[in-house]
Amino acid sequence: MTNKYNNVYIKDSYTLGLVYEGNGPLKEYFDKIYMDNLYYGESSFERAEIKMLKDSINGVIVKTNNKESNIDLIISGDLQNQIAASDYAIREFNIPFLGIFNACATYGEGLIIGANFIDNSKYKNIIVSTSSHNMVAEKQFRNPTEYGAPKPDYATFTASGAVSTVLTNKKNKIKIASSTIGRIMDAKIKDVNNMGAIMAIGAADTIKRHLEDLKIEPNYYDLILTGDLGKYGEEILIEYMKKEKIDLSQNYHDCGTILYDLEHQPVFAGGSGPVCSALVTFGYILKEMQKGKYKKVLYVPTGAIFSPTMFYQKETIPTISHAVSLEVV
Amino acid sequence: MTNKYNNVYIKDSYTLGLVYEGNGPLKEYFDKIYMDNLYYGESSFERAEIKMLKDSINGVIVKTNNKESNIDLIISGDLQNQIAASDYAIREFNIPFLGIFNACATYGEGLIIGANFIDNSKYKNIIVSTSSHNMVAEKQFRNPTEYGAPKPDYATFTASGAVSTVLTNKKNKIKIASSTIGRIMDAKIKDVNNMGAIMAIGAADTIKRHLEDLKIEPNYYDLILTGDLGKYGEEILIEYMKKEKIDLSQNYHDCGTILYDLEHQPVFAGGSGPVCSALVTFGYILKEMQKGKYKKVLYVPTGAIFSPTMFYQKETIPTISHAVSLEVV
Repeated sequence: MTNKYNNVYIKDSYTLGLVYEGNGPLKEYFDKIYMDNLYYGESSFERAEIKMLKDSINGVIVKTNNKESNIDLIISGDLQNQIAASDYAIREFNIPFLGIFNACATYGEGLIIGANFIDNSKYKNIIVSTSSHNMVAEKQFRNPTEYGAPKPDYATFTASGAVSTVLTNKKNKIKIASSTIGRIMDAKIKDVNNMGAIMAIGAADTIKRHLEDLKIEPNYYDLILTGDLGKYGEEILIEYMKKEKIDLSQNYHDCGTILYDLEHQPVFAGGSGPVCSALVTFGYILKEMQKGKYKKVLYVPTGAIFSPTMFYQKETIPTISHAVSLEVV
Repeated sequence: MTNKYNNVYIKDSYTLGLVYEGNGPLKEYFDKIYMDNLYYGESSFERAEIKMLKDSINGVIVKTNNKESNIDLIISGDLQNQIAASDYAIREFNIPFLGIFNACATYGEGLIIGANFIDNSKYKNIIVSTSSHNMVAEKQFRNPTEYGAPKPDYATFTASGAVSTVLTNKKNKIKIASSTIGRIMDAKIKDVNNMGAIMAIGAADTIKRHLEDLKIEPNYYDLILTGDLGKYGEEILIEYMKKEKIDLSQNYHDCGTILYDLEHQPVFAGGSGPVCSALVTFGYILKEMQKGKYKKVLYVPTGAIFSPTMFYQKETIPTISHAVSLEVV
């Protein structure tokens, strides 16, 4: 089932990144760049992420001329165990909170829940937030950085930053037109570095269902943007879709390959982490939509919803993707 | 803001517990009791929880005469890092999925999101699920059981089991009448065993806002049921509310003190874990509502939304509670 919305608009977003994001091709598009990749002036990696998330929420409240008391709800999730970045950042706000987790598809999930709360209801302003921090993710999901464990070319690099968007029921330039909630898929892969291959199957399923439900072709969109498949996953998705007779070769990109300069930055196959696709879509693409470059964009963040515990128990890695259609009114 | 719903009904629930739940006073009310506290026939504690959750989802689909293809959406969360129990259980179903996390308030969060999706929309059947497993929680949040670390009297005992409920837009005996989304509160406590004191402040805030928003007194409800405050937290909440001139002494109980026989079972101050309040409310209370014993019940699950990492970094423990009003039509 694909949701259609009548009155859900994007008021604006606040986007924040650290060194890798600030050295990348999109640096001009972000509201804040902080040139320290570790602590953001805090005492731990986790606290740095909490502070970034808090700053992005305060940032979007100010940027949209809101006050804390105008915000009806915050929906947020992140990669920290127990979504601790969201829990501790949003503790500082006097605003009702719903915590969510779909790994790197979290921002899509948040937008969908937010849109459903606003559509035809009395909710006026909802903030949807997410964050990730490279070192928090490395520490929690991978080997300690100090080990210097080598990574394959097809690994991705968790982006550091935070993004908050205000959704509103008040007419504005860009609306959320529709959304498709993902199903959990599993390509039966156990290699945690091979996220592109793991997640392409989820993106394929969601994009296919979205197009079928709305009876549209890929060229309905000026741009279809997946989350963090990286450069190899991007190719895999195009191949998958070809088999379904859906041609993505014309207007499709992956956020993981846009956030960084893959030739000159040491990010392997591209960016990942829930903030990666959020930074690209709500930092860069949103501004280009406001300027008129794109009219219709399908945002399809992709998540690998596994845990290190299940990985150690030799489980394969499931994935989910959600689709959110952004359209200039 | 308190949400009011027009057409959100509870079709039915499927409830499943292990040994402690099966030896407790509510055993007659559960759909399934499995008398092994560890593995549920699986190869690890985590897999046991995954299987329980899967069984509860299949159970409620059968019990409500549904088929998998009739279910529009599953909303689920649990205590495992990255909500792995939900991720891996729901992987087996061909149904769109939203993953959520508000610790032991997760079931309230799921019901609220589910209700908002159904209300005035084309969603017909949504499953809301949760689970917990005592040994998974001990391993992840506390000391290895083998250490035999002593616990204070005010500690709570994580319940093992799974609960799934079908929400429907089709008129039925019990409806979700309204809900109030919680804000994150912090009583500045660092003792992870003292969950009752940590969480009472969140329950107090949500119940107060709920009553004020709807302009009703506590006696509007036949029963107000908090999540897992335990017997000491129960007293703390009554005291808090007294200061606000709200009298909870007549019709208030805590699910943690109902699930087990606190005199004869070794559960300290009572049950906890997201499944605890779900088992009590959707196993026991729902059946009593169906029989006519209660007409209006306010379900207020309480969660401590911290992570072991933030605890080690000497952070205090924040909390959140959501309120969901169940009424016989």
